[in-house]
Amino acid sequence: MQQQICVITLATQDAARSRRFYVDGFGWRPVFENGEIIFFQMNGLMLGIWQKRAMEADMRCGRLCSPGAFSLAHNVARKDDVDSLVQLLVAAGGRVLRAADAPNHGGYRGYVADPDDHAWEIAWNPAWTIDQDGLVRFGT
Amino acid sequence: MQQQICVITLATQDAARSRRFYVDGFGWRPVFENGEIIFFQMNGLMLGIWQKRAMEADMRCGRLCSPGAFSLAHNVARKDDVDSLVQLLVAAGGRVLRAADAPNHGGYRGYVADPDDHAWEIAWNPAWTIDQDGLVRFGT
Repeated sequence: MQQQICVITLATQDAARSRRFYVDGFGWRPVFENGEIIFFQMNGLMLGIWQKRAMEADMRCGRLCSPGAFSLAHNVARKDDVDSLVQLLVAAGGRVLRAADAPNHGGYRGYVADPDDHAWEIAWNPAWTIDQDGLVRFGT
Repeated sequence: MQQQICVITLATQDAARSRRFYVDGFGWRPVFENGEIIFFQMNGLMLGIWQKRAMEADMRCGRLCSPGAFSLAHNVARKDDVDSLVQLLVAAGGRVLRAADAPNHGGYRGYVADPDDHAWEIAWNPAWTIDQDGLVRFGT
């Protein structure tokens, strides 16, 4: 079976608020949006931001909760980029969960929650290779 | 800012149980594992399965809950592959949330929860292109 994730979909309670975080904070450009869903073309997969109620109906699950037991990581090219991106995300409606510091395995990272409490790790990890298209390979 | 997600990390309460779902169910091969974390090399990003307690400590968040307000989608090449993969996932410890049917936007899909209640949409979507490396592009 192909080791492939086609879409990550995050539930939102307020699409305009989410849009501000992802477009103004990360600086990402949607590839599609209507009143209910926003898609971003990512590195080999899509990121979707979808109205929570519609998502619960589609999943046949009426009790989705936050913060969920998961995190997403966005890696930056330089150590200094971690703090500057965290500042941008907070200015766009994010909330710092953990101020950036150095983990035991090396690098530098902090955690920011988006307006719906979805956790993003903002990391500089020199051990992992990211090519110009954003494709990430496990470092050895 | 590069439109890139480096890692999706899912919390697990039982690494062996998760391993069975992802290795025996999806048929994926880890690129790294120790007692605490398993990494899979995916299509341009990593999937990590990490002990929930360690993850909560790292994120400075002691109240991660399930099912979280998100889903992941894995797309298959043929419509018939949806039901056969759902069966494999259930045999490996998954639970059907929604039996597969046809959504309004076309294609065919169902939802399966992994053993920690993380939701996977298993989808056949002929409108979206997936290349041989698993890289997904938004269809128009």
